Amino acid sequence: MREIGIGLIGCGIVGSGTAALLTDNADLIASRVGAKLVVRRIAVRDLSKIREVSIPAELFTTNVDDVISDPDIDIIAELVGGVDPAKAWIEAAFAAKKQVVTANKELMAKHGHALVQIAQENKLDFYAEGSVAGGIPIIAAMGESLAANRIQAVMGIVNGTTNFILSKMADEGASFDDVLREAQALGYAEADPTADVDAHDARYKIAILASIGFGTPVDESSVISEGIRTITARDIAVAKDLDHVIKLVAVAEQWEDQGTMHVRVHPALLHKDHPLASVNGAYNAVLVRGDGVGDTMFYGRGAGSLPTGSAVVGDLIAVSRNLVSGSTGRVHRPANANLRMLPRELVKSKFYVRMTAKDLPKVLSQVSNVFGDFDVSIESVIQRANNKDEAEIVLITHKCLEESFRGAVDVAERLPVVTGVHNWIRVEA
Amino acid sequence: MREIGIGLIGCGIVGSGTAALLTDNADLIASRVGAKLVVRRIAVRDLSKIREVSIPAELFTTNVDDVISDPDIDIIAELVGGVDPAKAWIEAAFAAKKQVVTANKELMAKHGHALVQIAQENKLDFYAEGSVAGGIPIIAAMGESLAANRIQAVMGIVNGTTNFILSKMADEGASFDDVLREAQALGYAEADPTADVDAHDARYKIAILASIGFGTPVDESSVISEGIRTITARDIAVAKDLDHVIKLVAVAEQWEDQGTMHVRVHPALLHKDHPLASVNGAYNAVLVRGDGVGDTMFYGRGAGSLPTGSAVVGDLIAVSRNLVSGSTGRVHRPANANLRMLPRELVKSKFYVRMTAKDLPKVLSQVSNVFGDFDVSIESVIQRANNKDEAEIVLITHKCLEESFRGAVDVAERLPVVTGVHNWIRVEA
Repeated sequence: MREIGIGLIGCGIVGSGTAALLTDNADLIASRVGAKLVVRRIAVRDLSKIREVSIPAELFTTNVDDVISDPDIDIIAELVGGVDPAKAWIEAAFAAKKQVVTANKELMAKHGHALVQIAQENKLDFYAEGSVAGGIPIIAAMGESLAANRIQAVMGIVNGTTNFILSKMADEGASFDDVLREAQALGYAEADPTADVDAHDARYKIAILASIGFGTPVDESSVISEGIRTITARDIAVAKDLDHVIKLVAVAEQWEDQGTMHVRVHPALLHKDHPLASVNGAYNAVLVRGDGVGDTMFYGRGAGSLPTGSAVVGDLIAVSRNLVSGSTGRVHRPANANLRMLPRELVKSKFYVRMTAKDLPKVLSQVSNVFGDFDVSIESVIQRANNKDEAEIVLITHKCLEESFRGAVDVAERLPVVTGVHNWIRVEA
Repeated sequence: MREIGIGLIGCGIVGSGTAALLTDNADLIASRVGAKLVVRRIAVRDLSKIREVSIPAELFTTNVDDVISDPDIDIIAELVGGVDPAKAWIEAAFAAKKQVVTANKELMAKHGHALVQIAQENKLDFYAEGSVAGGIPIIAAMGESLAANRIQAVMGIVNGTTNFILSKMADEGASFDDVLREAQALGYAEADPTADVDAHDARYKIAILASIGFGTPVDESSVISEGIRTITARDIAVAKDLDHVIKLVAVAEQWEDQGTMHVRVHPALLHKDHPLASVNGAYNAVLVRGDGVGDTMFYGRGAGSLPTGSAVVGDLIAVSRNLVSGSTGRVHRPANANLRMLPRELVKSKFYVRMTAKDLPKVLSQVSNVFGDFDVSIESVIQRANNKDEAEIVLITHKCLEESFRGAVDVAERLPVVTGVHNWIRVEA
């Protein structure tokens, strides 16, 4: 049986899961591909590090060029992450006529379009299923299975760390800071949690999904991203009273007739019957709306060694099938839609706002008049006395421009009866 | 730009959705494939029938051979359903070296293995995404994206009609008969509802999923299938009190180390936090458990013209990409696992049973003694007086053999204190 040579760059969490699946399921994979997938070299930074998977020592090298220039290696999997030097390695791999698989979200978000171009010009494969949502095959779904559809919108929970934190805050009524510390102690959050809690990770992922779904390059730096540090236990409790949960959602919408799209990541209230509302803990899920298929959802583990390894090895199998059948470069990902990013000021949302006011007659009418002055109409209101002789007022607006909403909040905050505006959060329908 | 000739056999619900997407999204699809997909002939039974999609009259023919033998047709989509004559048409298409796409679940369940063999021997493509769960790309997910995994279990809600009926019974507290009549009036259920409510449709679908997931031919006639006619509004209400919903589930499990599998369709209680519990109305969802990826779920519209058309056109795009890159027959689906079907008597399940008894002391201990005599241990019990001076007793057992459970129920039913055993239903964890 033909052998296909695999080279890995990186043998950390994703690399060891990839190696484990290639080893444990070798026979099964060979029967599915019609060829044996054989790991020939693995480039690592530190040869002395203990790996979670048993691999013959002679496969390891600290010289990435040993992998890229090995004539017996057909496919290179870049599993290190970050832009430098991963980008240069992948370019070198293409120059050496190697097929490439990656799980690198930052690289795909920042340079995916340029790298896809190089691959396509050279009829080489370049697959990146592991870069978004771990083991969930969302890139293949959008680029292949749902290719009959105009993708109209994508909405997902694509960051496991923040979903774990928000789920635990909801379950335990605990504060963000307390749960973050616990998540760090458990290894679910990094010592520096910025990439997750400030939504950079989710921003990279939705930029990738939007660019594939909409067929247009998306500048990730133009994606609105707001993290979850401001979400309080009180907001979560109030949302629950309103039959909502709070999630960090990544959203991309397009209006092709107008040539525009909008891409954003932010916390949002979701009604408890929303398909994403019950996605808890470290799970991820992505909703895709197509003009033929309607709403579909893809759910699974968003990170971890074997789940992300499943995505990487799935890509290695796809590329190997192309090698066996002589069809590398088989899947084109055209990026010719040229949608413009709609500026934030022009996007309409529903908003939740929580404020306190003196517990006096007509407080609510004063507050709602202010919103009316800004043309923001109100969908629902809760007012109740709290234990400080104040009234807590929670409003949910109908869809309105962010500018109008923020204008109304600014004026409401300065009303003599209002003692504080504590938080506002978007609401997704 | 190269043209790829498409021939359709059938232009009913699925055929017209297929034609509509090929027309409406023609430019988008061409840019994704690098070739134009052009419908050249459509075979129908009745030329005078009004179609929901505008197609030039000269494309229609009543002679299927006009489609199969047309030298300008590269791919044939069989969208008629049933075994005869669809099977003969597909065999004729293979003999004419045509690629084939189908949405025919009965044919795939009964003869899929043999047809895949013919296709593979001739290096022809044979895709059938539309045969299971409408627009949800579950066959591609299992056969391609998740191909790194040993698939351990598949569990789904794959029949929209029964899910609509059960969802409506739960929402309205209505009886099966009343909701069935309503579903028939709305067109959600057929005049003869047997295929749906007696679970034949779901049996075909889980047989297909198990055969692809486990890589073994599955004899659909050996799949246990029990329908939903016996489910009462009372069962649904009692299940709700126990935080469960009742769904028609299709389940396939394998124990590869023992060389066995089990495939079944039946109503089941699911805990409200189960990922399938919130799949309501006409939606479908399929859970797939792989040894690498863990639990994944795929959700969407399980039927309908455009959703199923999305699956068919997705297959046409995949085959077209293979034609453009010269790689038809690219995806092998080995069926060499040779798993034996575990007989029903050897499968352990949890069971719910609802009975009534005279409202006397020690009734519950008499009943539970009987279950203990059959080695069936009880996980939870509800006993409460009803308005006829009886006690309603609801038991949920731990996992046990069906034989033991039914033995216990038979004996319990004959206890002098027991006034009736009203229903028993499996419980899935």
